[in-house]
Amino acid sequence: MAKLVRKFVDSYDDDAGDAQDAGCVRAVLAELVLTFLFVFTGVSASMAAGSGGKPGEAMPMATLAAVAIAHALAAGVLVTAGFHVSGGHLNPAVTVAMMVRGHLSKLRTVLYVAAQLLASSLACILLRYLTGGMVTPVHALGVGIRPMQGLVMEVILTFSLLFVTYAMILDPRSQVRSIGPLLTGLIVGANSLAGGNFTGASMNPARSFGPALATGDWTHHWVYWVGPLLGGSLAAVVYESLFVVNKTHEPLLNGDC
Amino acid sequence: MAKLVRKFVDSYDDDAGDAQDAGCVRAVLAELVLTFLFVFTGVSASMAAGSGGKPGEAMPMATLAAVAIAHALAAGVLVTAGFHVSGGHLNPAVTVAMMVRGHLSKLRTVLYVAAQLLASSLACILLRYLTGGMVTPVHALGVGIRPMQGLVMEVILTFSLLFVTYAMILDPRSQVRSIGPLLTGLIVGANSLAGGNFTGASMNPARSFGPALATGDWTHHWVYWVGPLLGGSLAAVVYESLFVVNKTHEPLLNGDC
Amino acid sequence: MAKLVRKFVDSYDDDAGDAQDAGCVRAVLAELVLTFLFVFTGVSASMAAGSGGKPGEAMPMATLAAVAIAHALAAGVLVTAGFHVSGGHLNPAVTVAMMVRGHLSKLRTVLYVAAQLLASSLACILLRYLTGGMVTPVHALGVGIRPMQGLVMEVILTFSLLFVTYAMILDPRSQVRSIGPLLTGLIVGANSLAGGNFTGASMNPARSFGPALATGDWTHHWVYWVGPLLGGSLAAVVYESLFVVNKTHEPLLNGDC
Amino acid sequence: MAKLVRKFVDSYDDDAGDAQDAGCVRAVLAELVLTFLFVFTGVSASMAAGSGGKPGEAMPMATLAAVAIAHALAAGVLVTAGFHVSGGHLNPAVTVAMMVRGHLSKLRTVLYVAAQLLASSLACILLRYLTGGMVTPVHALGVGIRPMQGLVMEVILTFSLLFVTYAMILDPRSQVRSIGPLLTGLIVGANSLAGGNFTGASMNPARSFGPALATGDWTHHWVYWVGPLLGGSLAAVVYESLFVVNKTHEPLLNGDC
Repeated sequence: MAKLVRKFVDSYDDDAGDAQDAGCVRAVLAELVLTFLFVFTGVSASMAAGSGGKPGEAMPMATLAAVAIAHALAAGVLVTAGFHVSGGHLNPAVTVAMMVRGHLSKLRTVLYVAAQLLASSLACILLRYLTGGMVTPVHALGVGIRPMQGLVMEVILTFSLLFVTYAMILDPRSQVRSIGPLLTGLIVGANSLAGGNFTGASMNPARSFGPALATGDWTHHWVYWVGPLLGGSLAAVVYESLFVVNKTHEPLLNGDC
Repeated sequence: MAKLVRKFVDSYDDDAGDAQDAGCVRAVLAELVLTFLFVFTGVSASMAAGSGGKPGEAMPMATLAAVAIAHALAAGVLVTAGFHVSGGHLNPAVTVAMMVRGHLSKLRTVLYVAAQLLASSLACILLRYLTGGMVTPVHALGVGIRPMQGLVMEVILTFSLLFVTYAMILDPRSQVRSIGPLLTGLIVGANSLAGGNFTGASMNPARSFGPALATGDWTHHWVYWVGPLLGGSLAAVVYESLFVVNKTHEPLLNGDC
Repeated sequence: MAKLVRKFVDSYDDDAGDAQDAGCVRAVLAELVLTFLFVFTGVSASMAAGSGGKPGEAMPMATLAAVAIAHALAAGVLVTAGFHVSGGHLNPAVTVAMMVRGHLSKLRTVLYVAAQLLASSLACILLRYLTGGMVTPVHALGVGIRPMQGLVMEVILTFSLLFVTYAMILDPRSQVRSIGPLLTGLIVGANSLAGGNFTGASMNPARSFGPALATGDWTHHWVYWVGPLLGGSLAAVVYESLFVVNKTHEPLLNGDC
Repeated sequence: MAKLVRKFVDSYDDDAGDAQDAGCVRAVLAELVLTFLFVFTGVSASMAAGSGGKPGEAMPMATLAAVAIAHALAAGVLVTAGFHVSGGHLNPAVTVAMMVRGHLSKLRTVLYVAAQLLASSLACILLRYLTGGMVTPVHALGVGIRPMQGLVMEVILTFSLLFVTYAMILDPRSQVRSIGPLLTGLIVGANSLAGGNFTGASMNPARSFGPALATGDWTHHWVYWVGPLLGGSLAAVVYESLFVVNKTHEPLLNGDC
């Protein structure tokens, strides 16, 4: 089986005369596997925290901390693991922000986002089976938070995530490129503690998509697409416009897509 | 809009004939953006922790840990992200300690502090709107802690923060310069657990300023200016006097201010 | 005593005409010492968490977080400490996954696993003595989790652990080799929060073996062998088949076994 | 004042004709300042955790986690900050373990330990004043733990701390020297979660000394000297005898003592 898939992967790379690091099929597969593992860990921790009862109910802060730590460590390590293969996005907000500034082709953007959504869905459906049908908690607005308020919060939290991504990883002056992916995970942890009880602190449409699909609860789901995509792209534009001195618009990853 | 602001930023740099890393307007903007994100995350986590009821009331230790982790990770990552642009201060106690030892011009010091205070105020006012008017918890002295006791504690905690900053980042013998900013965030976390229930463990006048402005509660606010500025400057003087072998008094950042 | 053992160690190295880093006896001893310390710390934290009452009972999330942090930090540091001596496995699932892909001889695999099981047993028996007979909590399936469901969860969590190990440490394109061992500890922490209340989140047959031996409770113990060994080997095959461009099948460690 | 002390420090260095990194007075001062900050943070967090009521009473695991995180982060950062000045010991068990293997002169050992004890005492006395007389919690044996059991646990936990210190920092094969000090802090965190409710998990006689002095409670205090000194020295002997291939017995720090 693995051999078959490998043949398939390599044939694609050969077609493009490109046997380099960034074979496109390989990168899309990496996004699929790593997003699956990220969502599996994050949603499983949320289920264990018993946050599956009433969407939007506030968690005690120590419980939220446990869930935030799970997301922080999983994101930090898995993004690091995938960095040299696919860029380690695991998040449509990251993928779109890269595309907006010309670092990613439109085809690769579509393939990445499709892989991320598929992976999240598979992880959540599997978790329902593994736990005998427990609810996969959906991202929801906290009590008294209106959609526009939640939207602004998701914009700011995702702006924060992408701003540091640009500063630490894409800015050529950065001295911390290699640990940049780990640190993007840590800011996810901080932001989860900040926004967890107000909006769920998604910052990632794929992370929101799987649980919504698995439960059929799409209430305010648009907030978790518009907020992260807007906030992430805004950070990309602001950072590259104002803070990068020598800008490049070359794609970051080459390959056959 | 971004293009307009960028034109403005670049024109300033050009005026000074300085197209290097440390354009002053760029640096001040970075302080503005990063301090906004730091205070937004920190205060939002404090609000979620329900510490907005009675100023100075002790939090259960596990709740305090969640708030401390949010501040630690946010500070560590955001200071790292801004390090190559502005030095990543996000804190008047850091800015003043650098100025005291001649590493920063007086003009730049004023601009940084103004940006930090403005950013903190904006973050807190926005958080009130986003949460439908929840209180932004102010730093306050714990039950039975007198102002002079609180002052000494803030002096010591900020001394700790600046002492490690000097040792890890400014001392030329340091072998951990690149991860130094991350580690300053981690000491913020430790110190928050130590002092959180006694003084709030501010170590940062800007972090204290926004919530005070947004709520109008200025009780003992001077403690959160005098303590951090005194402790930070003391650490700068002690470290450079006693521990640095080859001292330099050149500014760390060049530019048009 | 130490001198005697050292003589023994050196004589073995000399026999093989190999005075290099990877003396086999030295490596096996490192696995023994480090696995002992890992299991001692992890199981002691679990005992302190009071999870020794009823196997499989869910822990409050904040309590689980404390146990997960203990395992994460212990694994991250101890694997780092042993990396240049033995590879820092401390886990039969890691050892077998290396062997499956030809990175480790069969003899060394057997010796490592034997050392790991012996170390875990000693740590748990000692802990019983030190605590006056407290139960060493065994890994157990959560309420309502069937063996097949638990097995799949252990497969996925261990797949995650080995996948990142391959990506960060064994892939020649990795830029984070030196901190890779620390990050494998952090993913253990995330996965413990994800699976702790469903299966115990073992990911390590040696970690499961000691407590089972010390208490005589072998219920579903096979799950904690089959799951990790299967998941780990699967990750090794998948990563090397699909994601490594220039594959090598040379042993990673040389020596007299 | 600072100038006076500096004159004093420099005069000592000049006397020995040694203007290098490791001036002895400078190193002792660094141990004094950093141990003070470490004990201040650690004990203050323990006081906030309300563990000052009945010595040896078990803390809820989430509360223990908060205290453990404070110690882990403070140790990790402060040891890193002092590494290039004094070696960053902050702990007689580290200092003695270095001396045992010939890496430190006897005079320097005495001066370091005196500075560490003085610093710890000052921190605890100051904390009593700052909190209006709150008890500084002493390290104590948990309910049902006999002195010999506690002793063995302190031996093992400190063995763990020194073993990783040797492996990561002193072994010339280590690839993580620069982050070694941070990781020694993280293992302190793991070990605190493991042993906190059984012995207090001191691993550091200076950390135990200050609270005992400030409260006058010396019950079983010898355990916190014998255990750490024995465990630390044992680790030094074991690591250098069995795991270091090319041993050196040169002092690690030169200077006028």
